[in-house]
Amino acid sequence: MREQELITLADSLFSGNIAGKGISKGIGDDCAVLSYNGKWDLIATCDTLSENTHFLKGTPPELLAHKLLAVNLSDVAAMAGIPLWGILSLAAPKKLSPAFLTRFMTALGKEAEKYKVSIVGGDTVRADALTLTLTLLGKVEKGRALLRSNAKEGDLVLVTGLLGNTFSNGKHLDFEPRLKEARWLRDKFSPTAMMDLSDGLFEDGSRMGRASGATLAIRGTEVPCADHCALKEALTGGEDFELLLTVPKSKFDEKLKRRFEKKFSLKLTVVGEVLKAGKHPLTIDGKAKKWSGYAHF
Amino acid sequence: MREQELITLADSLFSGNIAGKGISKGIGDDCAVLSYNGKWDLIATCDTLSENTHFLKGTPPELLAHKLLAVNLSDVAAMAGIPLWGILSLAAPKKLSPAFLTRFMTALGKEAEKYKVSIVGGDTVRADALTLTLTLLGKVEKGRALLRSNAKEGDLVLVTGLLGNTFSNGKHLDFEPRLKEARWLRDKFSPTAMMDLSDGLFEDGSRMGRASGATLAIRGTEVPCADHCALKEALTGGEDFELLLTVPKSKFDEKLKRRFEKKFSLKLTVVGEVLKAGKHPLTIDGKAKKWSGYAHF
Repeated sequence: MREQELITLADSLFSGNIAGKGISKGIGDDCAVLSYNGKWDLIATCDTLSENTHFLKGTPPELLAHKLLAVNLSDVAAMAGIPLWGILSLAAPKKLSPAFLTRFMTALGKEAEKYKVSIVGGDTVRADALTLTLTLLGKVEKGRALLRSNAKEGDLVLVTGLLGNTFSNGKHLDFEPRLKEARWLRDKFSPTAMMDLSDGLFEDGSRMGRASGATLAIRGTEVPCADHCALKEALTGGEDFELLLTVPKSKFDEKLKRRFEKKFSLKLTVVGEVLKAGKHPLTIDGKAKKWSGYAHF
Repeated sequence: MREQELITLADSLFSGNIAGKGISKGIGDDCAVLSYNGKWDLIATCDTLSENTHFLKGTPPELLAHKLLAVNLSDVAAMAGIPLWGILSLAAPKKLSPAFLTRFMTALGKEAEKYKVSIVGGDTVRADALTLTLTLLGKVEKGRALLRSNAKEGDLVLVTGLLGNTFSNGKHLDFEPRLKEARWLRDKFSPTAMMDLSDGLFEDGSRMGRASGATLAIRGTEVPCADHCALKEALTGGEDFELLLTVPKSKFDEKLKRRFEKKFSLKLTVVGEVLKAGKHPLTIDGKAKKWSGYAHF
């Protein structure tokens, strides 16, 4: 069963039970959006790193701690949210050394402090292979979470940073979640939709197109490829953890874009435009591609 | 590293980052207690079931779905809370059949509906062995979550149901979380402390004694043993998922106790008394024991 099939199944099985439960957005976006209080919505996300899938034996525990927190923070950023509390599940083999566990927990504590996240609970269990799950709760101004499902015909498509080559240049373990950038972009550009890029612009952009009932028309020459990598690598390599957003043309402004790039030392690039729904949710230079994104499942 | 050492380490590493973050209770109780709104506190808990530790290959997915939800609901019950939202991480081997996954997800959807929980998000990843993590969020009236750390000298010690033999009689997979019972007990008996029994009364009662700075003095003859099992099995077998609570003598009442037993068809038993802190956090007929509880880690 492919990940998308499983998510579709989960959505169909679980969504009957949502009315009146304080759920603005359930399964299918970077975070769930839940009722909180007069000023804020609560957002919740969860990511798992598992040995042999996301990392190999021998990966330094400090890098695991960073990545575990950062992948979740990237989901909070995608909603333009502020992280608050983390809940950790640590499933570890008996033979894992106390030194490794201590280094991992120490690093996670430091990383959490850096991003002002408090680890407030969790579970520790034995397992055959190391499996780390972090659930992250955060908040976002009431009604102002940015979903992936609201891109509108005529919007510009933008990405932050450089795409591709994240496995060869190490960025997939060592990336910086775009928390401040996301809030700045929300406040200055009023994006209609936003998500983070975990499986590559081709796959994630297709998801945004499908969720929005639109087509993202990407111009290949505009895609900011890391390390001069090939376009296909930039679009399908995955684990970029950059932001993909759609912005009404009336809100876009070259001067603001340069201000962003200077303020955050990070590229911001218009890579295409949103068209009304065509046969495919994403095209590259007007053509559909049969590529697949980075598969975590 | 033992589970208790790891929890102590986590507590020391993570607790520096708590002030001003809306955290009434962080690591160390059945749930974290977090700021929510004018009427409610938010509570959060997380439990993981892992293949070969908590279940063996061949366990029907319906039982896994029930148990995954029920262990978390039992933690919510322990705070006298009301469950709201679940976030699922499913780490599964590639060879796991779509039929198994579909049965698991279908059963989880049904169970969630039964307990009025909405599954609002999660993650699916590949792993060498099946590892299921559910984070459950709930609510409890502001300031009224029942912690394990507040048992007072002179209180009575009570347990619900029958203890022990849960692996031979199947209760460890098929138990009923004590959600309604917990709220009834809170409202009628004003307990000073409450927790759920996952590792057995000996280990969990010791935790309550330590957390409260007191000694739980258990009377062996009063312990309600399931299937006439031996006292040691009843106290250390684990996975009872019953409630352990301490009640001021002035609030206890035999008539109320019988009302509880009739209303819920469930035994409620006074098994001892809270004494001021002695050398050991829990005694049985006045004596310390060197037993260990059911170890999940």
